[in-house]
Amino acid sequence: MSLLVIGSVAFDDLATPSGTRSNILGGSASYFSLSASHFKPVEVVAVVGQDFGPEHFKVFQDRPIGLEGLVQVPGQSFRWKGRYDQDLNEAQTLDTQLNVFATFRPVLPEKSRTAPFLFLGNIDPVLQLNVVNQMARRPRWVALDTMNFWIEGAREALLAVLKTTDILLVNETEARSLSGEHNLVQAYRKICDLGPRILVVKRGEHGVSLFTPDGYFMAPAFPLEHVQDPTGAGDTFAGGFLGYLASTDALDLQTLKRATLAGTVMASFTVEAFGTARLETVTPACIQERMRLFSDMIHVAHP
Amino acid sequence: MSLLVIGSVAFDDLATPSGTRSNILGGSASYFSLSASHFKPVEVVAVVGQDFGPEHFKVFQDRPIGLEGLVQVPGQSFRWKGRYDQDLNEAQTLDTQLNVFATFRPVLPEKSRTAPFLFLGNIDPVLQLNVVNQMARRPRWVALDTMNFWIEGAREALLAVLKTTDILLVNETEARSLSGEHNLVQAYRKICDLGPRILVVKRGEHGVSLFTPDGYFMAPAFPLEHVQDPTGAGDTFAGGFLGYLASTDALDLQTLKRATLAGTVMASFTVEAFGTARLETVTPACIQERMRLFSDMIHVAHP
Repeated sequence: MSLLVIGSVAFDDLATPSGTRSNILGGSASYFSLSASHFKPVEVVAVVGQDFGPEHFKVFQDRPIGLEGLVQVPGQSFRWKGRYDQDLNEAQTLDTQLNVFATFRPVLPEKSRTAPFLFLGNIDPVLQLNVVNQMARRPRWVALDTMNFWIEGAREALLAVLKTTDILLVNETEARSLSGEHNLVQAYRKICDLGPRILVVKRGEHGVSLFTPDGYFMAPAFPLEHVQDPTGAGDTFAGGFLGYLASTDALDLQTLKRATLAGTVMASFTVEAFGTARLETVTPACIQERMRLFSDMIHVAHP
Repeated sequence: MSLLVIGSVAFDDLATPSGTRSNILGGSASYFSLSASHFKPVEVVAVVGQDFGPEHFKVFQDRPIGLEGLVQVPGQSFRWKGRYDQDLNEAQTLDTQLNVFATFRPVLPEKSRTAPFLFLGNIDPVLQLNVVNQMARRPRWVALDTMNFWIEGAREALLAVLKTTDILLVNETEARSLSGEHNLVQAYRKICDLGPRILVVKRGEHGVSLFTPDGYFMAPAFPLEHVQDPTGAGDTFAGGFLGYLASTDALDLQTLKRATLAGTVMASFTVEAFGTARLETVTPACIQERMRLFSDMIHVAHP
């Protein structure tokens, strides 16, 4: 009864106005699984190289995260180098080395093929579809992340996997580029015709917009005085959002709203420190407290 | 017991992806007063030229808007010509003719000098301070709008008027430029040292952030499928926000949150049509209905 994630596990070199870090654990599946594991056990399918040591495995093993699908192969792990200006919304990529990720062909362990909840991280849609096809039965829901590189460069494959998708998580530019509509309400309608019935638009520091058949919801980002490193905020959001959903096994509007708060709060922890540091140490009490603060903040009492 | 506004009344030429309009009623005081008048009687202090006809006066006279301070002088009214691309967030100014506005020196009618609520629209801070000094007694609150032109070009005068100000309404860039802080929570602290204790950051399609001594609040924009013309959305927000506040005569956090919803809903009507057209016709029932829809949308039920 786990939440299965396919994505990247990587090492990042980061420079932000708060400082620099080298060789720290990163990648979409890392942020996602560490975040989701606070709500639901997770199984990771990803690839790492020989540079991935016991201390890195331990970060996941300390949490309810299954690593049977985390394959280690000869070579170096995926490496990304990025920097942020004072406007922390946009990363500038300085270097990308796909390394072992370049030939990654996800193979699901036998026990993962019956996972009821599946998150397809942002990888080649051909591989995303191949993962769906490896499932022994249709999961209760499939969620998917993608980016303009695939929307523009692998549209046919992406449309094929979207047909099997219930929940799409993208940013504003991606929602517009996929749908051909600038207005997000209209973009949501077009995207519904492609498969997903739930659209989550990640807007960085502006928060998240949620579109569902039963209504819409917009949540701000949690206001923080000190943001150290925005890397992984979107994947952390996805982990908290989908982890919460998986823990309830519901998809009604109120549950989706609460899942949005969960994702937002988890992302607020991630950006307070470099890499996955804060995600590794945050306690259930801290999460509960911030969820309560955030609920109070956005709550408007009737007169 | 009115809400007094000092600002511009103008004619606009507008081009948006939805069409073009020439010579339509615009200006900050027009949008502000039409919006605020749905919650509280308003008095307008502004200047118009000989091109301002009876049909234009009638737009205000049809609402509880006092025009004793609307001076008509020889010459042409303030004229602005702007266009918007598909990204409706940013206006491109094609032409500005200050005309009679260039020599505008607001003089408050006797009865306006005791107004308990004062909104200083975005004009030269020297004039804003002069208006404050014309008041017979300190209003219950003073709210102020400004822009980077004054923040950079008339900083001393702006700092002087800010000392008398309770509520500051600006956009993100202006909040950052005024405070010298990129992070908005830190910007709020700096701005508190300058005078205002309440900061409203207008974020266009991303909504509004509210900072108060008792806590923060972020409201999204009301999601619309068809936006015709974003002109005046910020001034309409200010009108709904401050009109609602004036109607309650309270400044506690819950009242400020509800005022934020009122301003957001009024702005959502404005952008559905060109100029002030929708603001002129919207009914109390429409406003109530959309306030209810918006409250429901942002409400998160506890599990």
